[in-house]
Amino acid sequence: MGRLEAFRKSYGTSAGDSSLLERYFAVRKYSEFICEPLLLEDYVVQPSEEVSPPKWHLAHTTWFFETFVLSNLLEDYNHFHPRYAWLFNSYYEGAGEHSAKPDRGNLSRPSVDEILEYRAYVDQHMIKLIGDGNAAAESIIELGLHHEQQHQELLYTDIKYILGQNPLFPTYHVEFRETPHLEENHSFIRIEAGVYDIGAEKSGFSFDHERPQHKVMLPAFEIRASLITNDEYIAFINAGGYRDYRYWLSEGWEWVKRENISAPLYWREVRGHWFRYALSGLEEVNPDEPVTHVSFFEAHAFATWAGKRLPTEFEWEAAAPHLPWGLRWEHTNSAFLPYPGYRREAGLLGEYNGKFMVNSMVLRGASVVTPANHSRVTYRNFFAPHYRWQFTGIRLCKD
Amino acid sequence: MGRLEAFRKSYGTSAGDSSLLERYFAVRKYSEFICEPLLLEDYVVQPSEEVSPPKWHLAHTTWFFETFVLSNLLEDYNHFHPRYAWLFNSYYEGAGEHSAKPDRGNLSRPSVDEILEYRAYVDQHMIKLIGDGNAAAESIIELGLHHEQQHQELLYTDIKYILGQNPLFPTYHVEFRETPHLEENHSFIRIEAGVYDIGAEKSGFSFDHERPQHKVMLPAFEIRASLITNDEYIAFINAGGYRDYRYWLSEGWEWVKRENISAPLYWREVRGHWFRYALSGLEEVNPDEPVTHVSFFEAHAFATWAGKRLPTEFEWEAAAPHLPWGLRWEHTNSAFLPYPGYRREAGLLGEYNGKFMVNSMVLRGASVVTPANHSRVTYRNFFAPHYRWQFTGIRLCKD
Amino acid sequence: MGRLEAFRKSYGTSAGDSSLLERYFAVRKYSEFICEPLLLEDYVVQPSEEVSPPKWHLAHTTWFFETFVLSNLLEDYNHFHPRYAWLFNSYYEGAGEHSAKPDRGNLSRPSVDEILEYRAYVDQHMIKLIGDGNAAAESIIELGLHHEQQHQELLYTDIKYILGQNPLFPTYHVEFRETPHLEENHSFIRIEAGVYDIGAEKSGFSFDHERPQHKVMLPAFEIRASLITNDEYIAFINAGGYRDYRYWLSEGWEWVKRENISAPLYWREVRGHWFRYALSGLEEVNPDEPVTHVSFFEAHAFATWAGKRLPTEFEWEAAAPHLPWGLRWEHTNSAFLPYPGYRREAGLLGEYNGKFMVNSMVLRGASVVTPANHSRVTYRNFFAPHYRWQFTGIRLCKD
Amino acid sequence: MGRLEAFRKSYGTSAGDSSLLERYFAVRKYSEFICEPLLLEDYVVQPSEEVSPPKWHLAHTTWFFETFVLSNLLEDYNHFHPRYAWLFNSYYEGAGEHSAKPDRGNLSRPSVDEILEYRAYVDQHMIKLIGDGNAAAESIIELGLHHEQQHQELLYTDIKYILGQNPLFPTYHVEFRETPHLEENHSFIRIEAGVYDIGAEKSGFSFDHERPQHKVMLPAFEIRASLITNDEYIAFINAGGYRDYRYWLSEGWEWVKRENISAPLYWREVRGHWFRYALSGLEEVNPDEPVTHVSFFEAHAFATWAGKRLPTEFEWEAAAPHLPWGLRWEHTNSAFLPYPGYRREAGLLGEYNGKFMVNSMVLRGASVVTPANHSRVTYRNFFAPHYRWQFTGIRLCKD
Repeated sequence: MGRLEAFRKSYGTSAGDSSLLERYFAVRKYSEFICEPLLLEDYVVQPSEEVSPPKWHLAHTTWFFETFVLSNLLEDYNHFHPRYAWLFNSYYEGAGEHSAKPDRGNLSRPSVDEILEYRAYVDQHMIKLIGDGNAAAESIIELGLHHEQQHQELLYTDIKYILGQNPLFPTYHVEFRETPHLEENHSFIRIEAGVYDIGAEKSGFSFDHERPQHKVMLPAFEIRASLITNDEYIAFINAGGYRDYRYWLSEGWEWVKRENISAPLYWREVRGHWFRYALSGLEEVNPDEPVTHVSFFEAHAFATWAGKRLPTEFEWEAAAPHLPWGLRWEHTNSAFLPYPGYRREAGLLGEYNGKFMVNSMVLRGASVVTPANHSRVTYRNFFAPHYRWQFTGIRLCKD
Repeated sequence: MGRLEAFRKSYGTSAGDSSLLERYFAVRKYSEFICEPLLLEDYVVQPSEEVSPPKWHLAHTTWFFETFVLSNLLEDYNHFHPRYAWLFNSYYEGAGEHSAKPDRGNLSRPSVDEILEYRAYVDQHMIKLIGDGNAAAESIIELGLHHEQQHQELLYTDIKYILGQNPLFPTYHVEFRETPHLEENHSFIRIEAGVYDIGAEKSGFSFDHERPQHKVMLPAFEIRASLITNDEYIAFINAGGYRDYRYWLSEGWEWVKRENISAPLYWREVRGHWFRYALSGLEEVNPDEPVTHVSFFEAHAFATWAGKRLPTEFEWEAAAPHLPWGLRWEHTNSAFLPYPGYRREAGLLGEYNGKFMVNSMVLRGASVVTPANHSRVTYRNFFAPHYRWQFTGIRLCKD
Repeated sequence: MGRLEAFRKSYGTSAGDSSLLERYFAVRKYSEFICEPLLLEDYVVQPSEEVSPPKWHLAHTTWFFETFVLSNLLEDYNHFHPRYAWLFNSYYEGAGEHSAKPDRGNLSRPSVDEILEYRAYVDQHMIKLIGDGNAAAESIIELGLHHEQQHQELLYTDIKYILGQNPLFPTYHVEFRETPHLEENHSFIRIEAGVYDIGAEKSGFSFDHERPQHKVMLPAFEIRASLITNDEYIAFINAGGYRDYRYWLSEGWEWVKRENISAPLYWREVRGHWFRYALSGLEEVNPDEPVTHVSFFEAHAFATWAGKRLPTEFEWEAAAPHLPWGLRWEHTNSAFLPYPGYRREAGLLGEYNGKFMVNSMVLRGASVVTPANHSRVTYRNFFAPHYRWQFTGIRLCKD
Repeated sequence: MGRLEAFRKSYGTSAGDSSLLERYFAVRKYSEFICEPLLLEDYVVQPSEEVSPPKWHLAHTTWFFETFVLSNLLEDYNHFHPRYAWLFNSYYEGAGEHSAKPDRGNLSRPSVDEILEYRAYVDQHMIKLIGDGNAAAESIIELGLHHEQQHQELLYTDIKYILGQNPLFPTYHVEFRETPHLEENHSFIRIEAGVYDIGAEKSGFSFDHERPQHKVMLPAFEIRASLITNDEYIAFINAGGYRDYRYWLSEGWEWVKRENISAPLYWREVRGHWFRYALSGLEEVNPDEPVTHVSFFEAHAFATWAGKRLPTEFEWEAAAPHLPWGLRWEHTNSAFLPYPGYRREAGLLGEYNGKFMVNSMVLRGASVVTPANHSRVTYRNFFAPHYRWQFTGIRLCKD
């Protein structure tokens, strides 16, 4: 097992029951570790609006600790640089103005070296603060670590986009396995009708939008044990799935025509064979691996073509104990909306998730690049229905 | 009572238990009645993409009967004009290609006279077909009448937009009352926790997306007996509601800034007084009438500012027997998604509603321009969250 | 000879040496005459940004007299309507704010009847003013008449666009001949090198940008006696002219690809035959008529393909006495720039032409829809290089 | 004198009469020299469509020699990389497909190191080819060197844009002087009426569009000895020049309003003082230096405000022997059009300049970053009228 896999594994397993300081170290180190295989040039570019330059992620996650921990809790804290608050605020209106998201790739400065200095500076102060045992800070530091883990997943997906849209198809790391193991059980599992507890309990970390736990009445349904594979998806392509309006939601059909979509992201056909860019390079599509990088629109169209449907997020959570999951974020047919009794908190947390509760669909599970201890059965990921650059997949349901 | 009100009332009450032929007559006549106060020029223009020219509505509702009834069921039927199928198809991919929606206002021909001839031609054949008692046709004719009633509501809202955005503010009809009566009960009604039947039974007409009826578990909640009034909404404006990001969903905030939104549609401030365009002309805002022409974004922001929330569509339906409703379409915090067990039908019906089940929010109830017998407690209206040209309003909830 | 041709001819010939009042009558009447064959719906629409609704032209030309003559020179003049100044100002910043050009087709009101009343009201006051013999007013009235004649040409071209882009291809008038006669002399005429007087003398009416007359030194060149015909242009199409970048200016090539241009405006191919919409209806292309409705980009590409070039506007003016011209506006390879000694006048006239002296190319001559006494050898028409809706044609040169 | 100035001076003066090989070395070395002060991140970004990343310039100028010299003239030449032809072709349709211009900043690879290897590889082959004395290659190599010198100017202006739009305002080089000396003679010089020779003679290098030399008749005029200074321009700003439509061409006025333009590029007002970003950093505006980074629209508006006008390119060339010039590219009121007798050459040269002869205005002279031996009195630079990122300035004329 190579160094990459070893680190990724050890990082995931050791972090569970360690001290806050140990976890702080591990999480912060892992962000830089993810970037190690890059050339300096790769840290800078932003080839699509939803993608951020890796150096931006490294700075923004640091800004989070500086803004919400150090500035608030450390008396006489001096900001590392007066303009970084503006440069590295992502979308927190409550934290002042911020630079435009599509401009992130226009900024050659601060340089990667300066950002690494910024990280070291903030880490030094954070270590002191954690060492001093500031109880008030613990929950927001905890949130900051989960925040950085979210950006670790984005680092992988944004790096993949940066390299994968480059016509030279540079490899991120030859060792990287996007599908560490295959799933072989294509049968459907029956889940009985009933009232199920959905959402996170109060104890343990969870995001606000996973709470409160509440009861949902579900009819009986069946759900596939394994994700849809590439060869199943190729059958959809070969059946003309991308050219037949009947399988598509209206907005999806407009998207297919406007963007000329005819296959998952990163796929290209060369003399009758399908290839796909992966973090290990451009390789022929393995028919047995789960299809990846499909939008909600594509997942929905595939399900319609197959005479099945996507699960709701409630069905998914009820079925999760019976399923192997964690290879791909799984599209659900649920819109991202508040749970009954959800109340958008004042300040930071209100902006963290609550303000996005419109026009997004929920994805459940986790993916191969989700930090291992950043995964929960109640986790609700959410994106606009046309996005494809995350490691997404398809799981089907039937009544 | 003027002729306008008399007709609108008689149309609404008489139609319930009449024969199919009587109903066909009444519905078709009412569409033309709505347009009577217009000048010919008003039939032609399309000042915004979501608005259609009145003459297009008159033709499209006719095309529906020609395409889905006469062409299919009347042997030797000759189309009125070979190009109308292309011109007046709205969005049915299954019915062949169609002209672009934003181009509807570019077409001076066919003229209004030609479209009225088209209506007469199709009516003549429909009358014969209905008279001959074709049982196979009944359900699709029924759908066609409900379809035309939907467009009657759109005729009102599109006419209002055509006249209301005109700098001369021409009056549609001085008699028209957008708020026939005021609601005076601002108290909250308590709805107990429980399992409620949601959706339409199989008997009687309903759209496919209102079915199947199913059980939903709801926690206890309270809902306001009356809609939010203009003076309550002016308080929100005066409190800086349109300038404070904290009340807004992120996409709503972008919309407010991009479109410079600072009041409901059709409102303008003149020397410290609010005026609004209504179908009866430009008049000072009546503080006691329900606020109208607000988007989901505005309704959601108002609720957040007020420390309350919008109901879900399930809560609304459970509470409906206890509420006076019907003045305005009421924003809910539910996305437009299929009910459990919903299956998009093959062909026409699959396109009617099912393909729009993404990125829209549900509105419940009915409005002052909804044809009276076109209203049901299970009715699910749906629009993108920024639209304002329908007669929408706000009803609040609390836990 | 039908009534249409008779009027057009009499209008052109009689107007030359008549009194100001007679000319005022004739010009004003002709604008309404042009619109006579229209249905009311045709007066209203604006299917492209550069096209204006006919009722807008009828109102704007009236607004010109109201604003620049009556308001200034008639004491106690009451405006017909307080909002018309805003509605019917085209682009004169000095005359106050104006409505947006692309919105002209969104306004169903004022109605055609109201605009005809507006015309009558202004005419009544103008007749009185002219009758009173206000010498100060004469030159601005003269300008107003030339202004209205310019809009008469636009009335024809905008009506053609309104009807010609309609999928029903309604006829404007079956009698209308876009090419009253054919040109048969395809030979080249030699113009000797020398110094030529270019531009208008001070006496007689001319626009400011036709002056001052000045001397230009020209090398010898040859110019084609006749315009390029449809069959010559079809040869360019058949040779792949629209698919070969080598013939095109860079911006023209981008335009061809972006807009999918493959033939002149109003042409369509039906089973191997070219048809074109003309004011007399959709008809097969006559190979011997001059090609029409080509942009500067197309004219330039055709010339490059043919191994020739377009004339400069100076060459054209020097050659004009030797040429038959007047069927089509002729593209030149001259940008619209001031003549030496040109000075943009203060106020109105400065806005009339001077502010457009960038990014436009000059067209010389006149077209079949140019009012007959509105044509001069020094006339400089100008448009952006991609416009095609005017009656344009191609004349070639060689060194 | 610092190393920077020393190199720039020596480069400029030594190159004139040296051998082709010496000149090849000097030009190629200078491109890399310009980039020396950059951080690696600065080579990568493209903050505006008209700006290219420095690494792209380094590669594209190399691609020019590879494509037009080595591939054509060196038997058995192996391309450095099979995809570079596609990546580094700017706009030569005749050289095959090319990547989209706005995407240049999305490509982190090839890295700067790889591009420097590419340069070394091509240089090695070029040196051999030049050493072998291939006479056929000389004129195209000469063109390639002039081409690279054009990109050297672009390197300076694009680097300035990359650093100058960055909110941290990083310095390029503290030694760099954008205005090495001030001009003090603000008087006007009279140029007599007459016939002047315009354009380049056949002997010596010139671009195709500078030829053929021809005679132009000019009236007498006066031209300012010095460029407009910052304090003269500030007077225009203070007089409300950017808010008064009367000074602007119509397209310029639209541009001012759409882009919120209120000062030259790189200027910002801080507490009543004007600062501007220069390659030496953010500094207070020096009132005596020539105003820089103004568009044609601004130059034209300034001239109108001042009651003067811009010279034509012919007037400029006639006056040039009497003027000090070379600090700034000087806007003229001439459109970029072919000289009489110009014929777009087949192949490469036809694409080099000829295809841009529409919608651009001519700039004359040279700027402080023009390579010293890349300057001629007949040189015709050209840009769209809204561009400002070149080192442009204003010189006025009067009749």
